[in-house]
Amino acid sequence: MENSIKTYKKKTKGSARLFAKSKKYHVNGVHHNIRFFEPYPFVTKSAGGKFLIDVDSNKYVDYWMGHWSLVLGHGAKNIQKKAIQQIKNGWMYGTLNKNTLILSEKIAKAVPVAEKIRYVTTGTEATMYTVRLARAITGRKIIAKIDGGWHGYTTDLLKTVNWPFNQSESEGLVDEKHIVSLPYNNLEKSIAILKRVKKDLAGIVIEPVLGGGGAIPATKDYLRCIQEFAKKNDSLFILDEIVTGFRFRYGCLYDQMKLDPDIVTLGKIVGGGFPIGVICGKEDIMEHANTSTHSKKTRTYIGGGTFSANPLSMVAGSVNLDTIKKKGNSLYKKINSLGDETKKTLSKIFDDDVIITGKGSLFMTHFPKNNISKITNASDVAKCDAKKLHKYHFHMIANDGIFFLPGKLGAISDAHSSVDVKSMKKATERFVTNFQK
Amino acid sequence: MENSIKTYKKKTKGSARLFAKSKKYHVNGVHHNIRFFEPYPFVTKSAGGKFLIDVDSNKYVDYWMGHWSLVLGHGAKNIQKKAIQQIKNGWMYGTLNKNTLILSEKIAKAVPVAEKIRYVTTGTEATMYTVRLARAITGRKIIAKIDGGWHGYTTDLLKTVNWPFNQSESEGLVDEKHIVSLPYNNLEKSIAILKRVKKDLAGIVIEPVLGGGGAIPATKDYLRCIQEFAKKNDSLFILDEIVTGFRFRYGCLYDQMKLDPDIVTLGKIVGGGFPIGVICGKEDIMEHANTSTHSKKTRTYIGGGTFSANPLSMVAGSVNLDTIKKKGNSLYKKINSLGDETKKTLSKIFDDDVIITGKGSLFMTHFPKNNISKITNASDVAKCDAKKLHKYHFHMIANDGIFFLPGKLGAISDAHSSVDVKSMKKATERFVTNFQK
Repeated sequence: MENSIKTYKKKTKGSARLFAKSKKYHVNGVHHNIRFFEPYPFVTKSAGGKFLIDVDSNKYVDYWMGHWSLVLGHGAKNIQKKAIQQIKNGWMYGTLNKNTLILSEKIAKAVPVAEKIRYVTTGTEATMYTVRLARAITGRKIIAKIDGGWHGYTTDLLKTVNWPFNQSESEGLVDEKHIVSLPYNNLEKSIAILKRVKKDLAGIVIEPVLGGGGAIPATKDYLRCIQEFAKKNDSLFILDEIVTGFRFRYGCLYDQMKLDPDIVTLGKIVGGGFPIGVICGKEDIMEHANTSTHSKKTRTYIGGGTFSANPLSMVAGSVNLDTIKKKGNSLYKKINSLGDETKKTLSKIFDDDVIITGKGSLFMTHFPKNNISKITNASDVAKCDAKKLHKYHFHMIANDGIFFLPGKLGAISDAHSSVDVKSMKKATERFVTNFQK
Repeated sequence: MENSIKTYKKKTKGSARLFAKSKKYHVNGVHHNIRFFEPYPFVTKSAGGKFLIDVDSNKYVDYWMGHWSLVLGHGAKNIQKKAIQQIKNGWMYGTLNKNTLILSEKIAKAVPVAEKIRYVTTGTEATMYTVRLARAITGRKIIAKIDGGWHGYTTDLLKTVNWPFNQSESEGLVDEKHIVSLPYNNLEKSIAILKRVKKDLAGIVIEPVLGGGGAIPATKDYLRCIQEFAKKNDSLFILDEIVTGFRFRYGCLYDQMKLDPDIVTLGKIVGGGFPIGVICGKEDIMEHANTSTHSKKTRTYIGGGTFSANPLSMVAGSVNLDTIKKKGNSLYKKINSLGDETKKTLSKIFDDDVIITGKGSLFMTHFPKNNISKITNASDVAKCDAKKLHKYHFHMIANDGIFFLPGKLGAISDAHSSVDVKSMKKATERFVTNFQK
């Protein structure tokens, strides 16, 4: 580790200078807390294809891929072209624009629950409005989420994101009592918790693959039973597919899993890397937000925002989906099998001392401690050796020009290839050797 | 009005078709509730300079200007150029980038309270985090806002936005008791309300010019006394300058008014029309959000977001501020005096049957009813004839190609000129004549 830090510092002198400046202006030098890592994060100068390039001209094969939002890689040409064209026609109308309709046509076709769509600017906003809808429709107050579930920083869901889950995520939260939290994939305990609050349970919000919480897929059985509980209890069943939407197939995970959510939130990939959040829901639910048919007394107020449905995000999202669709199954086949290949390769190198979770093109390496033999939820992840994972990721940043946001899952894009699996193999072997010294 | 609707329908047939489609996909056909107006909003095809152009190729002189975010007009060349350049270098790094530092240097210089800055993606997010900070720092729960104050749709401030203020803004809100609301510019009543909650008062959030609430400036005396109360009470004094920042001068209103807020939120203009929200605060306050120096137990968790500080918004904001600064006082002198000219012209035509509020380049026409003789807060606005205002704005959309978002204040940009004052004069005269028929 000492050596890696030395190596990193030597090659990122420009970043060091800029980060010192950044700390002067910005809290902890960053704007998203997770973007900080020791000794300092490098400063990006540009990005293209699979690469991030820092201000010292170091190139990194990027597995962070813009918070996993870039399934085609950085700077995809089609998106670039249309975005530039749009910028020439203005980027901020503040009114309805045609691009919105074009994107919605595509989403509605690929995501059947999107009987009605509302665009917002971020995932945080999308999940916030979803909670509001659930409470409005049911007249109840409690929202259930998952331990380790990450739905943005919205006050309405800011609980049990980071370990230890029994500790508040933040000072200054005044209404945490209306959020309850469930252990992922542990049906018995989850149902027991839900039963305790069922009379006041407005809705349940779940990621079908825990993203920030550790790249853990939910079992079909778990999701189906939770859904069944929600339906029987007249609570809303909400799937947050901001990470998973258009990640594994052209569409969402939920219909492949034969689930029937009331609302699905999207973001990231559907905006092609431009700011977007999407609330997709069944007509009768979404219509509560219609201010033409509902008075102040009965409406649910969702979907504000100066930048919502701005023509640039709309056109970028639309070209992105077009491009993905044209590539057909080959894109997903490619990135999913690269994911499998990577997982297999890493397992072999680590000689089964690791557990690699994930699905398709998403994967994460865990270093088990405390006799953990499998990882099915975020509490299992918390029992792993996070420091070692951090060291592993940092080792690759410093020595091999491979970038994972330290501690976070990796995402493969269309810009990656089997060359990258080989590079990661080498890098990982070197880490194992160095670490064992 | 009937005739205006006929005229509008005749010239917006393409919009009508597209809006019907939009209603199929989208709740009430729109994504921000206020973007809807009867019989249907036109659909924008492009924008440039002072114009919005709809899909039927109608041109509108735009006073909505992207929710008042475009002080240089649509598609400003400098921003366009740099944004295109940035897009060629990638638009979504998900890591720290140099553009952020360049923008922060400018903001820190122009906005002294910005000892530390955090970028988020929207104003809604900025105000949400500000509330969280105030509660965290004081250990108290109650936030005071203004009747008619609009700070985005965040749950933490969603109260008393629209008349009647004693009615909830939305179904599905479960913690409104921690928000109290004050009548703008009514010091006596405001202080009385604050006194009742002072022991649990975390902070007070105020726009120095009520934006969505009716283009009403606060008096210096009002703001100073509220600030004094906050300071004495160890509550945070927070100014929301998302509308007013860089609108009247190169910087904020607060220092011109010799105020000393703890936090100022920015957005709109500082992003040049690209998605942005900014939390600017004093160092000791902002440092509560530092996750390197604070543990989970003591930190305030703010500033997430996939798109926060994305290189495109950062560069656009930076060029925008540069361009404004280079124009020096001449820009503000121009748009402020165009504002004054417009107000004077309208007052004359309406023969003092209207009250025109606003400041500098922001203005709004009110048609008083109920013996209202002046407008100092949103309750006064609510007593005016909103329908007539709507008719007036729609009359100009339909007949004169002049666009105000019906019922909302107008914003003059650098792309406007005295020709536009004359056009509005003619349009308004025609409205008066037609209306009196």
